[in-house]
Amino acid sequence: MSKKIVIVGGVAGGATTAARLRRLDEQAEIVMFERGEYISFANCGLPYYIGGAITERDALLVQTVEGMAEKFHLDIRIQSEVIAINRERKTVTVKHLPTGETYEESYDYLVLSPGASPIKPNIPGIEEANDLFTLRNIPDTDRIKSYVDEKKPKKAVVIGGGFIGVEMVENLWERGIDVTLVEMAKQIMAPVDYEMAAILHQHIRDKGVRLILEDGVASFEQKGKIVRLQSGTTIETDMIVLAIGVKPENELAKQAGLAIGERGGIQVNEYLQTSDPSIYAIGDAIEVIDYINGKPTHIPLAWPANRQGRIVADHIYGRNVRYNGTLGTAIAKVFDMTVAATGNNEKTLQRLGITYEVLHIHPNSHASYYPGAFPIALKLLFDRKTGRIFGAQAVGYDGVDKRIDVIATAIKGGMTVFDLPDLELAYAPPYSSAKDPVNMAGYVASNIIENMVETIQWHEVNQLVKNGACLVDVREEMERDMGFIPGSINIPLGQLRKRLHELSKDETIYVYCQVGLRGYLAARILTQHGFRVKNLDGGYKTYA
Amino acid sequence: MSKKIVIVGGVAGGATTAARLRRLDEQAEIVMFERGEYISFANCGLPYYIGGAITERDALLVQTVEGMAEKFHLDIRIQSEVIAINRERKTVTVKHLPTGETYEESYDYLVLSPGASPIKPNIPGIEEANDLFTLRNIPDTDRIKSYVDEKKPKKAVVIGGGFIGVEMVENLWERGIDVTLVEMAKQIMAPVDYEMAAILHQHIRDKGVRLILEDGVASFEQKGKIVRLQSGTTIETDMIVLAIGVKPENELAKQAGLAIGERGGIQVNEYLQTSDPSIYAIGDAIEVIDYINGKPTHIPLAWPANRQGRIVADHIYGRNVRYNGTLGTAIAKVFDMTVAATGNNEKTLQRLGITYEVLHIHPNSHASYYPGAFPIALKLLFDRKTGRIFGAQAVGYDGVDKRIDVIATAIKGGMTVFDLPDLELAYAPPYSSAKDPVNMAGYVASNIIENMVETIQWHEVNQLVKNGACLVDVREEMERDMGFIPGSINIPLGQLRKRLHELSKDETIYVYCQVGLRGYLAARILTQHGFRVKNLDGGYKTYA
Ligand SMILES: Cc1cc2nc3c(=O)[nH]c(=O)nc-3n(C[C@H](O)[C@H](O)[C@H](O)COP(=O)(O)OP(=O)(O)OC[C@H]3O[C@@H](n4cnc5c(N)ncnc54)[C@H](O)[C@@H]3O)c2cc1C
Ligand SMILES: Cc1cc2nc3c(=O)[nH]c(=O)nc-3n(C[C@H](O)[C@H](O)[C@H](O)COP(=O)(O)OP(=O)(O)OC[C@H]3O[C@@H](n4cnc5c(N)ncnc54)[C@H](O)[C@@H]3O)c2cc1C
Ligand SMILES: CC(C)(COP(=O)(O)OP(=O)(O)OC[C@H]1O[C@@H](n2cnc3c(N)ncnc32)[C@H](O)[C@@H]1OP(=O)(O)O)[C@@H](O)C(=O)NCCC(=O)NCCS
Ligand SMILES: CC(C)(COP(=O)(O)OP(=O)(O)OC[C@H]1O[C@@H](n2cnc3c(N)ncnc32)[C@H](O)[C@@H]1OP(=O)(O)O)[C@@H](O)C(=O)NCCC(=O)NCCS
Ligand SMILES: [Ca+2]
Ligand SMILES: [Ca+2]
Repeated sequence: MSKKIVIVGGVAGGATTAARLRRLDEQAEIVMFERGEYISFANCGLPYYIGGAITERDALLVQTVEGMAEKFHLDIRIQSEVIAINRERKTVTVKHLPTGETYEESYDYLVLSPGASPIKPNIPGIEEANDLFTLRNIPDTDRIKSYVDEKKPKKAVVIGGGFIGVEMVENLWERGIDVTLVEMAKQIMAPVDYEMAAILHQHIRDKGVRLILEDGVASFEQKGKIVRLQSGTTIETDMIVLAIGVKPENELAKQAGLAIGERGGIQVNEYLQTSDPSIYAIGDAIEVIDYINGKPTHIPLAWPANRQGRIVADHIYGRNVRYNGTLGTAIAKVFDMTVAATGNNEKTLQRLGITYEVLHIHPNSHASYYPGAFPIALKLLFDRKTGRIFGAQAVGYDGVDKRIDVIATAIKGGMTVFDLPDLELAYAPPYSSAKDPVNMAGYVASNIIENMVETIQWHEVNQLVKNGACLVDVREEMERDMGFIPGSINIPLGQLRKRLHELSKDETIYVYCQVGLRGYLAARILTQHGFRVKNLDGGYKTYA
Repeated sequence: MSKKIVIVGGVAGGATTAARLRRLDEQAEIVMFERGEYISFANCGLPYYIGGAITERDALLVQTVEGMAEKFHLDIRIQSEVIAINRERKTVTVKHLPTGETYEESYDYLVLSPGASPIKPNIPGIEEANDLFTLRNIPDTDRIKSYVDEKKPKKAVVIGGGFIGVEMVENLWERGIDVTLVEMAKQIMAPVDYEMAAILHQHIRDKGVRLILEDGVASFEQKGKIVRLQSGTTIETDMIVLAIGVKPENELAKQAGLAIGERGGIQVNEYLQTSDPSIYAIGDAIEVIDYINGKPTHIPLAWPANRQGRIVADHIYGRNVRYNGTLGTAIAKVFDMTVAATGNNEKTLQRLGITYEVLHIHPNSHASYYPGAFPIALKLLFDRKTGRIFGAQAVGYDGVDKRIDVIATAIKGGMTVFDLPDLELAYAPPYSSAKDPVNMAGYVASNIIENMVETIQWHEVNQLVKNGACLVDVREEMERDMGFIPGSINIPLGQLRKRLHELSKDETIYVYCQVGLRGYLAARILTQHGFRVKNLDGGYKTYA
């Protein structure tokens, strides 16, 4: 007997499930419900259509209803909201939105991929604010785009420095709008740690964006023409984009009595089954297991939704598949720069009380002598005992995506930092160096673990300065013109061996250079001459 | 007692060994001999200095003799050729080239990193040819560059379509020279297979380069003004670059009675020791183990030289390290395109009688709706039984390096094709798609292994056409205007389910589309309706 599968949500997770189901079973009855008018659209492209990089609206519609229905022989019902799950009867109640008519549809298997919706908190004045937008789907996009096209706003405030917020900042800026970005935390782009985000802070400020950190919205006034912050600052604006995060669309699941996690995500097992085994849930709506630390979390990204959609289809057909958790690999373009991360960051590891080591390096994206090379700020987090990789972060102008993808692959391959030097990556001058940045990260990590060098972190420096520690800058004199750590003395690396007598063996010597490499060389020399020495990880560049 | 280490060769392998040795031991006596005038230069950048992309000659000199000697406290002796190894005495005989003076220098450990020299075969007229060049080092580069700068040649012939040859073609072309590339094999860029190289053939011809395949040089005539090919073709030229490959510099090792492999490489064990355990050898001069097939081979690339240099230093200091073989990951810029490969290609697997499966896909470098996306021709070779990855090849305009690096990492992590869909790679529209091309390769490979689809290869099509096989083109009618397989009928995918009656269950149906995706969908539909069907792997694009 052929199976009947009902899918709630017709975009990333839902449409993928439907497509794979059909490939597995030409006979299955597949019904896909979508509340909106569009299915299978490119959520991730929406900001770029507003900004103008994507010129054709049609390009956002990956599949049309007709096209997809025909190609995959699907029963696709748009403007149809599933308003209840009747588990005992194995049916869903559907409301046809244009008519308000409701009916029941039966299922053998139900797949929930309803996504997550933008958080809209109860801030005073939010209901009265006229030109306040959130961005999730095509109608939202049309609204923002036509407002920008027609009203030609001069000023915009974007609230929230996550990746959607930052993409909106960039795309409104592309339209010639004066943009202010307001973020409650002390940094934007939560997946990376503060010192990495700081590079982006500088970059977006250089572009002329006003960036306000550690401040939240207190109220919207004058119908949204004024944004008042908790600090008292007021900002005049012509429009507001609210992008402070998303919350899982869990109402259906909740009403049906399915288990819901702490952060609101629908709980599933490794086969993506909810607490009712004939109901699967995937995508932004679910709680996933963090691949690194094994704890439940919420990671609303397109790769997991797509991957999970295919796994569910396979599992319904009895295949031996499972979802192994989410690493949280993420990336964003921030004007001319790229920021990317995979695995856990320091904030997460600290919160969970996991002990870790950290390193920062700044290798060039490709051979420095070949044009177009830019340093990549690359951070690696790992376990000192086992060398296990906890996570990585990178910020730069070029080659950032590649290095994070390689490290994400290494993590999935169960490799440790000791394996990174052995990665045989493609080298020619336009693409990399004979030791790729990832190899280099592996070398530097191994040196830390093997006690070739002890390091200190950028955030420990100020205290050392205060304590009057012995800080030795091993850069060339010229380099100090661009800034140095207060109280540090200068002994260029090339002179170090001759000037050992200037240093004392009674106190720890803290060496530093621009990025950490010469500091490491200095540390090796000093250590072997009987000095106690620590190198500033990441050098002056990470510190500054 | 401190160790004395003597190094032969002061560039990639040699200089790396010296640097790491010093970091390991501040007391060691380290003597580095280099025959030439320069150490530690950027071999790989040389063509780009000739072409003008690299404007500063100094940029090629990664380290100067003085700088490196000071920084690493090394005894560097340039213009000093090691002319003999006296194993019984543990000394080398050195000839100081400017004076002709010779002397012996003792060692505890000897490290050979003499590299490989351009092959210069005994072709009639080669000695008399005036403006015939090879390219290995700075003096070679100076010679070619000053010839181009001063003599302003109009025409050049490059002999050999390996990566140095192709880079020279591009860089001479950049100088406005009319270039002919002559290659004896039926393809350039031996690390990839024919159908992949064919994309490059088209590209370099589109640039106006004359490409002559399957033809070799018979003689140089009129002092190198005429190149006569074996086919009888003659080419007039103002200059000739010979780039037909390199051979290991093994004379020293040979004379000293060290074991030499079949292809001329010095033989070493997993610790990179030669048959004399106090003599190590690394880099282009050695025979390595192919990481995929375990057979000895010769892979003259910079990554292995650098990696091996560090391993040797560590091994001399008793560390637990070993070299695991070379994967042969390689990459080259070919005008606007990039070609890269890792692991074994079809030619190698066939030669060794290894059974393999193959797939070709053409996913976009990033989301197709975001500007600047170009298809990547991606080929994957794998074991049908175990899913083990044998190798991968890619050609495209963007994102090629990343995908090959990810697959090279997966190979080193012991991952199979079944693990590729689970790689959680960074996705935002400017960088990738929600299913990365590498994920997609994993899906397609899994489908082949799991018998979701049977495929045929591009080179099998002509025979099928001859035999009058039933070929069904499932593309839209419009797409056929740009070409189709002779004898194929057209049933667009969307109409297939309604037109099943037009097809017969008595013979195998061969479906194809543009890249293989719709062909796969068609194959799934037909298979489940009881037809025997095979899909053309890579679609019309790989076939054409
Ligand atoms: C502006 C923007 C940019 C983004 N950029 C990126 C990026 O660069 N990279 C990345 O990885 N991710 C990005 N994402 C996130 C990515 O789009 C989501 O992770 C992914 O779409 C989640 O898939 P899903 O199927 O869970 O939910 P969705 O794709 O949101 O689909 C859920 C659908 O279900 C429908 N639905 C909900 N409830 C019901 C119901 N009861 N009945 C019927 N239909 C219902 C909704 O209308 C919705 O269309 C972005 C998202 C946005 C909004
Ligand atoms: C033009 C060009 C482009 C290249 N591009 C790339 C690329 O894009 N990617 C890549 O991976 N690889 C590339 N390579 C290859 C790469 O440069 C080599 O693999 C690497 O340099 C090998 O290092 P090595 O130490 O073995 O030899 P080398 O770097 O060649 O160093 C050997 C040195 O030893 C010296 N020597 C030899 N015999 C003696 C002796 N008896 N006494 C004293 N000195 C001696 C030689 O003079 C030479 O300087 C390129 C090479 C060339 C020539
Ligand atoms: C497009 C969409 C409907 C998915 O459809 P899909 O058919 O699963 O996905 P694709 O079109 O990428 O094709 C993948 C399938 O084709 C196969 N395939 C891809 N290229 C192939 C080729 N060259 N030859 C043979 N098969 C190929 C794959 O193996 C896979 O099939 P499988 O799952 O049976 O193994 C769904 O992803 C979607 O709605 N996307 C838009 C929304 C979205 O993802 N938003 C977030 C990001 S903006
Ligand atoms: C430059 C050259 C002398 C090598 O020197 P090297 O010191 O081994 O290499 P690098 O300068 O890349 O530095 C690597 C070392 O610095 C360390 N390092 C790099 N960045 C660091 C950082 N930010 N903080 C701390 N340590 C760092 C690495 O761990 C490594 O040390 P280790 O081997 O002790 O672990 C040698 O590679 C060379 O001659 N290259 C030019 C020739 C060549 O390679 N040609 C072929 C390609 S064109
Ligand atoms: Ca690059
Ligand atoms: Ca790209």
